[in-house]
Amino acid sequence: MKNIAVLGSTGSIGVNTLDIVRSFPDKFKIKSLCCKSNIEVLSEQIIEFKPDIVSVFDEETAGKLRKKISGRIKTEILWGDSGYKEAVSLDSIDMVVSAIVGSAGLKPTFEAIHKGKDIALANKESLVAAGDIVLEEALKRNVRIVPVDSEHSAIFQALEGHDKKELAKIFLTASGGPFRKLEKSEFKNITPEQAVNHPTWKMGAKISVDSATLMNKGLELIEAVYLFDLNPLSVEIVVHPQSIVHSMAGFFDGSIIAQMGLPDMREAISYALSWPKRLETGFGFPDFSFLDLHFEKPDYERFRSLGLAFSAAREKKTLPAAMNAANEEAVYAFLKKMIRFDQIPEIVEEVMLKHDNLKAESIGDVFLADEKSRIAASEIIKKWSNI
Amino acid sequence: MKNIAVLGSTGSIGVNTLDIVRSFPDKFKIKSLCCKSNIEVLSEQIIEFKPDIVSVFDEETAGKLRKKISGRIKTEILWGDSGYKEAVSLDSIDMVVSAIVGSAGLKPTFEAIHKGKDIALANKESLVAAGDIVLEEALKRNVRIVPVDSEHSAIFQALEGHDKKELAKIFLTASGGPFRKLEKSEFKNITPEQAVNHPTWKMGAKISVDSATLMNKGLELIEAVYLFDLNPLSVEIVVHPQSIVHSMAGFFDGSIIAQMGLPDMREAISYALSWPKRLETGFGFPDFSFLDLHFEKPDYERFRSLGLAFSAAREKKTLPAAMNAANEEAVYAFLKKMIRFDQIPEIVEEVMLKHDNLKAESIGDVFLADEKSRIAASEIIKKWSNI
Repeated sequence: MKNIAVLGSTGSIGVNTLDIVRSFPDKFKIKSLCCKSNIEVLSEQIIEFKPDIVSVFDEETAGKLRKKISGRIKTEILWGDSGYKEAVSLDSIDMVVSAIVGSAGLKPTFEAIHKGKDIALANKESLVAAGDIVLEEALKRNVRIVPVDSEHSAIFQALEGHDKKELAKIFLTASGGPFRKLEKSEFKNITPEQAVNHPTWKMGAKISVDSATLMNKGLELIEAVYLFDLNPLSVEIVVHPQSIVHSMAGFFDGSIIAQMGLPDMREAISYALSWPKRLETGFGFPDFSFLDLHFEKPDYERFRSLGLAFSAAREKKTLPAAMNAANEEAVYAFLKKMIRFDQIPEIVEEVMLKHDNLKAESIGDVFLADEKSRIAASEIIKKWSNI
Repeated sequence: MKNIAVLGSTGSIGVNTLDIVRSFPDKFKIKSLCCKSNIEVLSEQIIEFKPDIVSVFDEETAGKLRKKISGRIKTEILWGDSGYKEAVSLDSIDMVVSAIVGSAGLKPTFEAIHKGKDIALANKESLVAAGDIVLEEALKRNVRIVPVDSEHSAIFQALEGHDKKELAKIFLTASGGPFRKLEKSEFKNITPEQAVNHPTWKMGAKISVDSATLMNKGLELIEAVYLFDLNPLSVEIVVHPQSIVHSMAGFFDGSIIAQMGLPDMREAISYALSWPKRLETGFGFPDFSFLDLHFEKPDYERFRSLGLAFSAAREKKTLPAAMNAANEEAVYAFLKKMIRFDQIPEIVEEVMLKHDNLKAESIGDVFLADEKSRIAASEIIKKWSNI
């Protein structure tokens, strides 16, 4: 029996994680659940999975939740940083599923690693913003980080049983998002409604916009560079609209090991939960009786976020944290219709250009870079949102 | 340094094996070379690689070869079964590359296994005709069989580091051959010249015809069933004309591990020679900057050999040997224009239907089944070739 904590239990990764746990009650037990504020869904999860602890964003939400489930269940309800911290620290927990969206996931993920919990990592910002520090802590605490993103899970699976020293190249696949074929001149007219409508994956608004700008792939590039200790120059982004090939590892003898599957995020989640064994989920395979898989190179001109991410992956230090924070601010501003779609990478670039790229000595330095970058981004957004 | 013997050194696998050996003189040394009768090529190989022993098919060929290279080199020249036997038995040999075409490869391959030599297996008939016996001997002598066929190498590589117990399915890819899109009514008019013209792989005449009838894929199916201990029902043949995906392993969680590469047989050869390490050959990767990979199911009606092979894979015992022998006779009769292309599977089926399917207790029983099947096939060919 593996005891699980889920950070971000009401998001798409969280809900799918619980779906797996539900199907294998003899293998997994939910010990704690955390989310921001979706107490409708969280209260149902509490009733079904009976965790020891849940934690939400703030005291007010915790109060509402207490009222909602009062007397019906013994689960302890906590809130804020200390609540998240406690929720991942229970002695009985074996693995923490880190699925909070954005840089808010960094603190509790770091705490879980610090407490020696294995991590099923969906929150890419933990590595993007603080890769060196997070990995150093994981090494120190003998923590295994198993990726949940389908691309990183693919690379992880493709490298299993093969010698990393013989690796020559990673092919990181990207669906290309909803605007793969859209003319550059149309980018300024893209609405939030169009941007969140992803062709293959059903995800939250922030990550859907990142998929539309390809910044999501940029963040995945940086995550991969940290997680697998890669030279960014040995990573090739490949657009693959069918999302069947989830990524590939190329070795120096010309042999490529690819991991494939249906575009169902439960596959990578189940792999991370049960690694090094697989779960007999019987998810089924793509239908090869008639299938066409297309691959093409991404257009770095229309999707400027990709180039920015490659710069950050090369420069490292606090630049990836700054890039990520600026991007979050820009995306939320776009979702609030304060800026245009094509302004997202422009804002990120502006912030990156002004960023003083120092090495983070601690997680505090990362938050500082994050905060400064958000302020810089907000100022630009304020200036531009009048246009 | 790995000491190598090559059975079938003048064929396409043999020549490509020597190409690898030539590029890595610090890793491999050629100890012996065997071929049937191509002494032009063999004599050049002798001069370049200076093996201790070479062996050819018969005394006459050996005599000619002796005359050809007399005095120039100290290589011992042998012939016939005993010659092949000695050539694979040298104490210094670590690995035998088994690349003789057809069931003629079985005897020397079995002898090499008996002598405890690791096998780089290209001769699929060794497993097709005598799978149980060959594998039992390999187990007894602690011999590792590493496949050289690109498909089996792909499955081998895809399974490395993964748990065979979690395997649900093998997708065995097939180029589909030159007649993938040809109307059934045209099959009777196919000439040997058309049949040997394979779209992606450059190979000998026999194997090219087998690729055109898809019997090659049938033989590979049976080989895979033995080599990886598979239920034939868990193997799906997938037509994939680009020959980039060399085969795939599907696990019970829906995850597929595929091995890919350019259609260059040196890739699988280099992997087999150097396993468990890879050679830094730098063969290069497919160009994913614009690539389309197509998959479709094979047409079992036009390519009847496939269905016959599935029957043989299910029934096992001596039926695969009988099927293979009948097919060899039929293919050579077709190449001599004695029968039509569409008669190849008809002859094989006739022989299979009449075959008394007993278990082979020894390699002798296999040769008996092989011989009986050839006689039966020859009789049908004689009868039909008047048409």
